[in-house]
Amino acid sequence: MRIAVDVMGGDHGCGVVIEGAKRALQTERRITALYLVGNRAEIHSALPQRGFRDHRVRVIHASEVVTMTDKPTAALRRKKDCSIWRAMELVHDGKADAVISPGNTGGIFAAATLKLGRIPGVDRGGIATVIPTADHAFVLLDAGANIECKPIHLAHYAIMGSIYARAVLHYENPRVGILSIGTEEGKGNELTLEAYRLCKQLDLNFIGNVEGHDLFGGRVDVVVCDGFVGNVVLKTAESLAAAIFTMLRNELAVSPRRQLGALLAHNAFRTIKRRLDPEGAGGAPLLGFNGVVMKAHGSSRERAIANAIRVTAETLHHHVNQVIAEEVAKANERLQVAETPVPAPAPA
Amino acid sequence: MRIAVDVMGGDHGCGVVIEGAKRALQTERRITALYLVGNRAEIHSALPQRGFRDHRVRVIHASEVVTMTDKPTAALRRKKDCSIWRAMELVHDGKADAVISPGNTGGIFAAATLKLGRIPGVDRGGIATVIPTADHAFVLLDAGANIECKPIHLAHYAIMGSIYARAVLHYENPRVGILSIGTEEGKGNELTLEAYRLCKQLDLNFIGNVEGHDLFGGRVDVVVCDGFVGNVVLKTAESLAAAIFTMLRNELAVSPRRQLGALLAHNAFRTIKRRLDPEGAGGAPLLGFNGVVMKAHGSSRERAIANAIRVTAETLHHHVNQVIAEEVAKANERLQVAETPVPAPAPA
Repeated sequence: MRIAVDVMGGDHGCGVVIEGAKRALQTERRITALYLVGNRAEIHSALPQRGFRDHRVRVIHASEVVTMTDKPTAALRRKKDCSIWRAMELVHDGKADAVISPGNTGGIFAAATLKLGRIPGVDRGGIATVIPTADHAFVLLDAGANIECKPIHLAHYAIMGSIYARAVLHYENPRVGILSIGTEEGKGNELTLEAYRLCKQLDLNFIGNVEGHDLFGGRVDVVVCDGFVGNVVLKTAESLAAAIFTMLRNELAVSPRRQLGALLAHNAFRTIKRRLDPEGAGGAPLLGFNGVVMKAHGSSRERAIANAIRVTAETLHHHVNQVIAEEVAKANERLQVAETPVPAPAPA
Repeated sequence: MRIAVDVMGGDHGCGVVIEGAKRALQTERRITALYLVGNRAEIHSALPQRGFRDHRVRVIHASEVVTMTDKPTAALRRKKDCSIWRAMELVHDGKADAVISPGNTGGIFAAATLKLGRIPGVDRGGIATVIPTADHAFVLLDAGANIECKPIHLAHYAIMGSIYARAVLHYENPRVGILSIGTEEGKGNELTLEAYRLCKQLDLNFIGNVEGHDLFGGRVDVVVCDGFVGNVVLKTAESLAAAIFTMLRNELAVSPRRQLGALLAHNAFRTIKRRLDPEGAGGAPLLGFNGVVMKAHGSSRERAIANAIRVTAETLHHHVNQVIAEEVAKANERLQVAETPVPAPAPA
């Protein structure tokens, strides 16, 4: 498998991304070629600095970068030689199988849409995020790519999320739920009610509606929602977790007694923080495109990049995109058959 | 002020609600009459058991109750003599100023809609929830009453939430934000983009869009969204907080060293748990109705009921509903003027 890494566009510069790539290659023998895409001079100066020598590495020059504040489509039009575009090009031209980028999410999404196109039968791509819980993890999608969803998009997310959870989280038969405001079938808005009707007809382990209360209780493996709701949920969870850790830090500093307690229990806090750390998951795949596309967090450090590369290898190893193409085609056929009106009997 | 408490319909029976009412009356001198609405026999047996004697208490009999599993509108039609209906009737008939209930939220909402009606100019009622953060609290609305919102509903929520935050959280000039997927003006879906345009024209401390990341960081005092998003956010936050506490408990029990640490730092955890406990806020008002309506959590215990009563007294004390009527009227006028096309000059 051959992976293109956009080393530009992350918050911490290309050195951190290159270091992450180095670490991933050390353990990941399935990768046969790793493209580092970005400013050639910067990459060539970073490689020896970090003692990164591996015959699988190739450097692809790109003189520009889509920044976090750029408007995605406009930036892609203006910056013809940007790293995310060049990375996508490698997949488009059959030189690489996957792209990883810590850059502007909208830019990655737009480049994937324009350069790779969608898997036949898939109407809209979606971002899937793996969210850790106490002793579990679930896939949430769409996490913010597709703001105005149609029911069929949610049905496709259900299929794609299920396949991804099987491949990467190794869940045998992932439980798929639609995020709604109650678990009963009749609860929800127009979008979720119709998506429920579609998902019921699919070959999925569909458990119906789930609500916010179910997310962190281990009841569900794939949570499907539109990109607006998914984005709000994801960021709310990140914000609350951070707030609780801040409260803990403050409260534990209040007295010498508590400080001693915190010292003794330090490993407990570290374990939980590590467990909930979004960097552990490494990356969020953009599902539904002709090529594996992995978005790493903008603030990714070495460990997150290395994890993103490993997850990408796992995604390729399980042929996630081929399975998506097959299952979406089957689902579309089934839904189409279900929707086709039975012809009225000919008059006698 | 005169308050009607629906003592039925909570998860823990009427005794707990009556005990909460007793505690509230002990400190709340502004209340001149407190109606306990529910099964007369149960109430009359609970009062002496709890040593609850107060000349302000009146018992109103209701033979039925809307349960948590009832379908709201159907239940109200079938159970003519249910406690929530009798409580609303007291307000409707001018005998009480406010209703508090720990019962079925949909039932309370339906009863308020049918019996009290909405404040003139308000299109839809909404549920406002006070959510605590590390060193702050914000009002989130709508938390689940109005699933399919129009932009004008969000604008009214902005106004009502701002007035409520001023009255009950004592924020002088509450910062109002629309919950979206990014802070820039152009980020959002059709609903939030149009609501943004409306809110900009209102006499509010409108700070524009906020995203999930902003919720627990103390950046915003009133968070406006449709009832679907609000419900998901609220329940997700509750679910995550509970999961983190479970992880803490488990991790702190792993070794004797950590157990000792936990013991020493015990008060820190308790402070945080108390701070994040939704019972602290006591109740979530249903805003926009002709009468103050306070929903207490179904699982409310004594403390939560007492807090709900105190918050209700505070809401009445600040004439929240009168202010809402005035400000919504002003806002509607302003928005209408803004939308009225300027007549073309008459041809010369």
